[in-house]
Amino acid sequence: MRDNPRLLPPGGDGWLAWLRNYRLAWLSGDLVAGVVTAIMIIPQSMAYAMLAGLPVQIGLYASLLPLIGYALFGSSMSMSVGPVAVTALMTAALLAPMASIGSAEYLQLAIWLALMSGVLLFVLGLLRMGFLANFLSHPVISGFISGASLLILLSQLPHLLGMDRMPTTPAQLVEQWHPGSGLALAMGLLALAWLLYARTRLAAHLHSLGVNQAVAGVLARLAPILVVAVGMLLTVGFDLAEQGVPVVGSLPAGLPSLVWNTPQLETLGMLMLPAALISLVSFVESVSIAQSLARRKRQSIDPDRELLGLGTANIGAALTGGFAVCGGFSRSGVNIEAGANTPLAGVVSAAVLALILMTIAPVFASLPLVVLAVVILVAVAPLIDVAGLRRTWRYDRREGATLVATAAGVVLLGIEGGIVLGVGLSIVTQLWRGSRPHVAVVGRVPGTQYFRNTRRHLVEIEPQLLAVRIDENIFFANTRAIERAIFQALCDYPDTRHLLLILSAVNHIDSTGLDMLGELSLGLHEKGIDVHLAEVKGPVMDQLADTDWLRTLVVNVFPSTHIAFNTLSEAAPVAVASAE
Amino acid sequence: MRDNPRLLPPGGDGWLAWLRNYRLAWLSGDLVAGVVTAIMIIPQSMAYAMLAGLPVQIGLYASLLPLIGYALFGSSMSMSVGPVAVTALMTAALLAPMASIGSAEYLQLAIWLALMSGVLLFVLGLLRMGFLANFLSHPVISGFISGASLLILLSQLPHLLGMDRMPTTPAQLVEQWHPGSGLALAMGLLALAWLLYARTRLAAHLHSLGVNQAVAGVLARLAPILVVAVGMLLTVGFDLAEQGVPVVGSLPAGLPSLVWNTPQLETLGMLMLPAALISLVSFVESVSIAQSLARRKRQSIDPDRELLGLGTANIGAALTGGFAVCGGFSRSGVNIEAGANTPLAGVVSAAVLALILMTIAPVFASLPLVVLAVVILVAVAPLIDVAGLRRTWRYDRREGATLVATAAGVVLLGIEGGIVLGVGLSIVTQLWRGSRPHVAVVGRVPGTQYFRNTRRHLVEIEPQLLAVRIDENIFFANTRAIERAIFQALCDYPDTRHLLLILSAVNHIDSTGLDMLGELSLGLHEKGIDVHLAEVKGPVMDQLADTDWLRTLVVNVFPSTHIAFNTLSEAAPVAVASAE
Repeated sequence: MRDNPRLLPPGGDGWLAWLRNYRLAWLSGDLVAGVVTAIMIIPQSMAYAMLAGLPVQIGLYASLLPLIGYALFGSSMSMSVGPVAVTALMTAALLAPMASIGSAEYLQLAIWLALMSGVLLFVLGLLRMGFLANFLSHPVISGFISGASLLILLSQLPHLLGMDRMPTTPAQLVEQWHPGSGLALAMGLLALAWLLYARTRLAAHLHSLGVNQAVAGVLARLAPILVVAVGMLLTVGFDLAEQGVPVVGSLPAGLPSLVWNTPQLETLGMLMLPAALISLVSFVESVSIAQSLARRKRQSIDPDRELLGLGTANIGAALTGGFAVCGGFSRSGVNIEAGANTPLAGVVSAAVLALILMTIAPVFASLPLVVLAVVILVAVAPLIDVAGLRRTWRYDRREGATLVATAAGVVLLGIEGGIVLGVGLSIVTQLWRGSRPHVAVVGRVPGTQYFRNTRRHLVEIEPQLLAVRIDENIFFANTRAIERAIFQALCDYPDTRHLLLILSAVNHIDSTGLDMLGELSLGLHEKGIDVHLAEVKGPVMDQLADTDWLRTLVVNVFPSTHIAFNTLSEAAPVAVASAE
Repeated sequence: MRDNPRLLPPGGDGWLAWLRNYRLAWLSGDLVAGVVTAIMIIPQSMAYAMLAGLPVQIGLYASLLPLIGYALFGSSMSMSVGPVAVTALMTAALLAPMASIGSAEYLQLAIWLALMSGVLLFVLGLLRMGFLANFLSHPVISGFISGASLLILLSQLPHLLGMDRMPTTPAQLVEQWHPGSGLALAMGLLALAWLLYARTRLAAHLHSLGVNQAVAGVLARLAPILVVAVGMLLTVGFDLAEQGVPVVGSLPAGLPSLVWNTPQLETLGMLMLPAALISLVSFVESVSIAQSLARRKRQSIDPDRELLGLGTANIGAALTGGFAVCGGFSRSGVNIEAGANTPLAGVVSAAVLALILMTIAPVFASLPLVVLAVVILVAVAPLIDVAGLRRTWRYDRREGATLVATAAGVVLLGIEGGIVLGVGLSIVTQLWRGSRPHVAVVGRVPGTQYFRNTRRHLVEIEPQLLAVRIDENIFFANTRAIERAIFQALCDYPDTRHLLLILSAVNHIDSTGLDMLGELSLGLHEKGIDVHLAEVKGPVMDQLADTDWLRTLVVNVFPSTHIAFNTLSEAAPVAVASAE
C-alpha cells in the first residue's frame, strides 16, 4: 500500500489531468476501445431512442457530444455515457402525459428535459451536492432498476409480434395478427436465441477456438451488430418491409445540427420535477457504474465531478437534439474490456459515430424494429436482480420488503411513486431500527478489565453500582425506550446507589435525548441515586460540556468502565450467574 | 431503590387498579382537588370554546364525560382532561374551510371531529401504537406549541377591542371603533393586569400574609374566577352589554342531552386527516403532561393506556355535544397541587360542573367576551417557549432551526404544514447527522489495554496493523463516507498489511453497508491486505454470521482490540506523537 493507485487516476488529480499528462502508452487502448464501443452502441442507442418514443436517429445524435462533454469534467476513466434503458423509459413515462409520442412537440420536450437535467446536474455539481445520492439505499436502487426493467420488458413485447400495442385477449391477438407478425416473431426468436447464446457461451467457445480471452469477451459483446446486419440483409433481400414487418423507416444522413429553442417559463416549470427525477436516477446509476469500474482499476471517482460531467453530457445531448443520457452498464463494460485508459476512448467513439452518421446511416432505415426490441430485451433482462433480492431478504427482511415495495411501486404507481415509496420506506426502516435500542446491564468478566452483558455472560457486579450500556445513539425516536429500559434495570437491581451510563456506542445525543437524561437524572438525584458516565466519545463530550445536565446532575465522567468500577465499588464484588 | 414507587401507581398496575384498591386516605385530596379544579376550569372551558368558534356552553359540556371517560382507562393519576387551547385552535383551523363558524353544521362537524379522533385514539391504543409519538422530537413539539400559541394570541386581539376582527390599518381602526370598544379595552387591560399579577406575585404575597404555601399556589391559579365574577357584576351593574360591550349572550341551563347524528361516509372521509392530526397532537401533548406529572409523584404512565383514556374522553365529549379534548397543562397543575391522588378527582370535577350547569349556568350569559380573551392570553402566552429555543439552539443549531421552522410553518403554512415540515426536518437532520460518521485511527495508550484516536492522544501503533474505529451505525446514508475515510487511512499508513475494523460503536449494519464492506474487503484482499474485525456487538454478529462477507473475506473476529493487537503485531510497537 506504499502507493495507493486507487486514489490516483492516471495523470493524477485535477481538471483534465488525464489529458494534460497523457502518455503515448495509453493511446492504442483508447483507440481500440473507442472504435469497438462505437460499433457496439449503434444498435443500443437506436433501440433506446425507440424505447423513449423518439426517432431512432435521436439515439445516435445523443451519443456524440455527451461523450465529449463527459470527458471534459467526469472523473471516471472508463465510463461510457449515452442513452440508457432506464432514462429512456423515464423520458417516455414522464413526457407521455404532456405530449403525444411521435409528435414534434414531444421531441422538443425530450430535448428540453435533457437540457434541464443537464443544467440541474451541473449546478448540483458546482454546489458539491454529490452526497445527495447517499439517500438512496441499495435496496431502493435495486428495486427501482428491477421494476423499471420489468416495465421495459413489457413495453417491448408487442414489437416481437410486429404490433404497435399488446393484445390483451386471444381474440384481439387474432384480430391484430397481420402477415408481418409471423415473420417478425420468427426473426425475433432467432435473434433472441443468438443473443442469449452470445451472452452465455460465445466468449468461451471463441476462447476454446484459440481466440485470446479478452478479445473473445469483446467479440461476444459485439454480437448485436451481427443481428443488426443480418436483420437488415434479410429485410432488403426478401423485401420484408413490403410484407408487413415494421422497420425503422427513413433515417437521414449527416450530423445533427446544433439546435436551440428557448422554452417558455411555463414549460420549464412543468419539466422541473421530471428533470429532477431523471437527474437523480442518472446520477445514482452513473456513480454506481463509475465506482464499480474504478474499483476494477484501483482508481477512485469523485461524485461532485461526476455531477459536472453528467451535466455537461446532458447539455451536450440537448444541443444536438438528443435526449437524456447517463453512464451505461454494458457500453462501459465493453469500453473497459476493450482497453480504455482515459476518456479519450469516448472521444474516439464519438468521432467514429459521427463518421457513420455522415456515411452509412441511411442503410439502417431497413432495420426491423423487432431486432431493436430483442436487443433491449437481452440488455435489460439481467437487470432484474433476483439474486440481489434473495440476498437482501436473507440479510434483513425489512430491507427485502423495501426492495420489493420499490419495484412494485415503479410498476404499479409509476417511476415517481416507486422512488418516493422506496426512499420513504428506507428512511422509516432506519428510524424504526434506531427506535428499538439495545440496552444492556453489564458486569465485569472475572479477572479482566472487560465488561459484558449480564444476560449473555457470567460476570461480576457490584450491588450498589448499576452499569448500563446504551447501544444506540440517543435521539427522539428512542428516548422513551431507553428511559423505560433504565427504569426496568433499576427495578431489577433495587440496591442501586450509583447509576453508571456507559456511552461507548453512543455517537450522538440530540436535544430530546438530553431532556430525557436531564429529567431522569433529576428524579434519581432526588431519590439519592448518583448518575455517572463512562466512555463518552470525544465529539459527544464536546457537545455535552456546556449543558446544565453535565454540570449539575452528572457526578463523575470516567474514561473507562473499569476505572468507574474501581472507584465506585464499596463492597466485595458479587458473582452472578448468566441470567437467561 | 428497594421499592421503586415510580413504577407503581397507587393501587398497583392493571385496569382501574386505583379504584379497586382505593384507600380512604386519598379521599380528602381527591374531593378538594375535584372541586377546586372544577371552579378553575369554568372560565377556561368557555374561553377555549370561543377560541374553537363554538358557543361557550360547549366548552362546559366537553368537561363532563371526558373526565369520567379518562378515569376509566387513562394511566395518569393526576391529569385533568378537557378543552385545551391548541386543540381548540386546531378545531377552528381545520373546520373553517368546511363550514362557516357559528353555523349548526360547524358545530356538528366539531362533534364528529371529536368522535372520530376519539375512535382513532382508542383503536391506536388497542393496537399498542403509543410508540408513534416518538416520531415527534422535542424541537418539533416545542416549535408547534409556540407557533400555535402565537396564532392563538393573534386571534384574541380583536376581542380586546370589542371587535369581531382585527383592523389592519389605522383608518379601519377608527372606522370599526364603537362605544363598547373603549369599555372592552379598559376592562381587558385591568383583567390582564390582575391576571399577570396573580400569575407572578399573588402566591408569594398570600404566603407572606400567612397563607399556607400550597393553598396560596392554588388560590393564585383560581384568579381567573375573580375576573369572571367581577366582569359579570360590572356588566350587570352598569348594563355594559347595552353600551356595546360584547358578552356571551344566552346560555341555557341544564345538562347537555346525549346526542347522536350518524355522519355520512363522505363527511367521515373529509374529517379523516383533521382527526388524525388532532389525535396526534392531543396524544403528544397529553403524554408530555402526564409524564411530567407522573415524574413529580414518582409514578409512571403507559402511552398505550393514555391512548385508550384519551380516546374514551373524546368519544365522551362527542356524546354530550362537545368538541375535541386532551390533557391540559394548567388544569392538571391545579389538580395535582390541590391534592389529587387518583382520577376520582376528575370525576368529582365533572360532578361539580354538572351541578353548576344545572343551577347557575345562565348567569354566565352576561360575561364579557373580553374577559375570556384575556384568560386565553394569559394562559397561552407562557407556552411560547423562548427559553427552550435558546437552550436548543445553544445545544445544536440544526435542532434550533428545526424548532423555528416548525413554529414559522404553523403560523405561515398552517397546522398541518407546520407539523409536516417539522417532522420532515427532524428526520432529515437525523439522517444527515448519521451521514457524517466519525471514523478514527486508533493506537494503544502505552502500558494499558486502552485504544484511543491517534489524532487526540499519544498512542502506540503497529506499522503493519491499521486499526480503524467506526463511530456510527453503517447504513446507506454513510457508507460512501466510511469507505472514503478508510481509504484515506490506508493512504496515511501505507505499510498496512492488516486492516482492523473496530465495531464497538456500530449497533447495526444495513445491506448497503454490508455491500460496501464486501467490496472494500475484496479489493483489499486482492492487494494482499487482510481485513479483521474487533468488538463486534452480539446483535450485529448474529446478523452478520450468515453472510458471504464474514465467511469468506473477514480473516479474524477478535473479542477485543487488545487481543487483536497482540495477535497481529509482528514488529515492536512504534510510538507516534499526537498528530494534530
